[in-house]
Amino acid sequence: MINRLCIIGVGLIGGSLARALKAKGACHEVVGYSRQVGHLQRAVELGVIDRYEQTVADAIRNADVIVIAVPAGAFDTVFAEIADAASARAIITDVGSVKESVIRSAAMYLEHHLARFVPGHPIAGSEKTGVEASDAGLFVNAKVVLTPTAGTDPGAVKIIRDMWNSAGADVVEMDAGEHDRILAATSHLPHLLAFALVDLLAQMDGKTDVFSYTGGGFRDFTRIASGDPQMWHDICLANRDAVVAVIESYRASLDTLGKAIEQEDSRFITSMFIRAKQARDRF
Amino acid sequence: MINRLCIIGVGLIGGSLARALKAKGACHEVVGYSRQVGHLQRAVELGVIDRYEQTVADAIRNADVIVIAVPAGAFDTVFAEIADAASARAIITDVGSVKESVIRSAAMYLEHHLARFVPGHPIAGSEKTGVEASDAGLFVNAKVVLTPTAGTDPGAVKIIRDMWNSAGADVVEMDAGEHDRILAATSHLPHLLAFALVDLLAQMDGKTDVFSYTGGGFRDFTRIASGDPQMWHDICLANRDAVVAVIESYRASLDTLGKAIEQEDSRFITSMFIRAKQARDRF
Repeated sequence: MINRLCIIGVGLIGGSLARALKAKGACHEVVGYSRQVGHLQRAVELGVIDRYEQTVADAIRNADVIVIAVPAGAFDTVFAEIADAASARAIITDVGSVKESVIRSAAMYLEHHLARFVPGHPIAGSEKTGVEASDAGLFVNAKVVLTPTAGTDPGAVKIIRDMWNSAGADVVEMDAGEHDRILAATSHLPHLLAFALVDLLAQMDGKTDVFSYTGGGFRDFTRIASGDPQMWHDICLANRDAVVAVIESYRASLDTLGKAIEQEDSRFITSMFIRAKQARDRF
Repeated sequence: MINRLCIIGVGLIGGSLARALKAKGACHEVVGYSRQVGHLQRAVELGVIDRYEQTVADAIRNADVIVIAVPAGAFDTVFAEIADAASARAIITDVGSVKESVIRSAAMYLEHHLARFVPGHPIAGSEKTGVEASDAGLFVNAKVVLTPTAGTDPGAVKIIRDMWNSAGADVVEMDAGEHDRILAATSHLPHLLAFALVDLLAQMDGKTDVFSYTGGGFRDFTRIASGDPQMWHDICLANRDAVVAVIESYRASLDTLGKAIEQEDSRFITSMFIRAKQARDRF
């Protein structure tokens, strides 16, 4: 049982976590902070948080657990504000999609709170954003990756693990670098591919409305291109090296497939499509 | 009103068209042909077709409209069989995803029936295949592209246009080459990208189950990688030149994006993502 939970950034992820923990009685009080007071007022109206404060320092006062659910670009500032005002026993975690960059930022700003910082990433989401879209069931059966370092207090890891379990998630621990390489392939690359495809079609879209010659498959394929451009920009830069490396691997694959089509290499084409279909159907 | 409609290839598309026309009373009798008698028996049981024959020649006897709904690889054979046995007034159409290759094949095999051949492509479908998945509503508000040539009889085009309108579709006419270039971008390329991504992940999938670190976005994005590998192989080869060209354009886009990420060119990345999101949200 968490006595006072503070959510910094009450959007889809932060709001859904607050809802889930309140629904399970896993925390006594939820205090919210956000740069936009309007979002906080709405979060109180919706019953997502119990109350809010207008500075990070006020919001985290006497908090047992502080969850940072802000965009990748805002971590440095938030860490610095927390370092000045968090209680000595507060456990700090985050929900960022890229972990090595967050760990670097924490090492730089969190000072004597560093051992109680547990880097985390719930693999759940939606193209929808904001507290209005928050949902107590968002994390049920979702995977949450925690990437503690050698210096992280195991007791702090246990509390964050229990918190996510209460929200219905399946928690795993992993090295931050491995997390970032996997997510570059399973999440960041697909988003880049979808953005690049829609942009290519938009450029072709002269006198013919090419988007009207698409079916349900295209709609599904490009749904993720409706994601928040600023958020995906921040993720690409925060995970730059892994993203650049996986784009390279993908380009090499696409090159080989393109050459096989040009040369009518039926065996290569069919076996790639069969392997992919089997992997997709299993999953 | 079509008196006798013959469907060659009673699968998802052929079956759905038969269901739609019967539901609207737009044809009197539907005769089916397929290489697999089991499919035909099931189609009769489901009420999709009225009866079936075991040769193309028997199936098309006295048919007013013949719809060819077979995989891209089977067109030559079917056209040759039709040329020998169709009545002089029969109107022939197809539902193939690539039009220039079908037109070349028709020119080679259809002989004196060529003027009454109306190349067509309903842009509708599903990862599901087979007559069991057929649905009278599949074409409601779907786009159907007809690509008549200079030699096509306008009266025949009108009958096929009316047929698709009866099924609820929105019919447009277009040059076959333009159709093939557009579909290479809106349909064939997305499928290739999804197959290539899932295959890349399957290759990474050693000791870590990378597929378990994916969310709903990935599921949507890769749904089309569950498509029939043989069918997509056939489409890639039938539309080879347009597919190779659009892969090239896409690779160039992806290259530029990869370099922008490497060089942290925020302005370029953000503006591409914003353009894509706006185009996706409009559509």
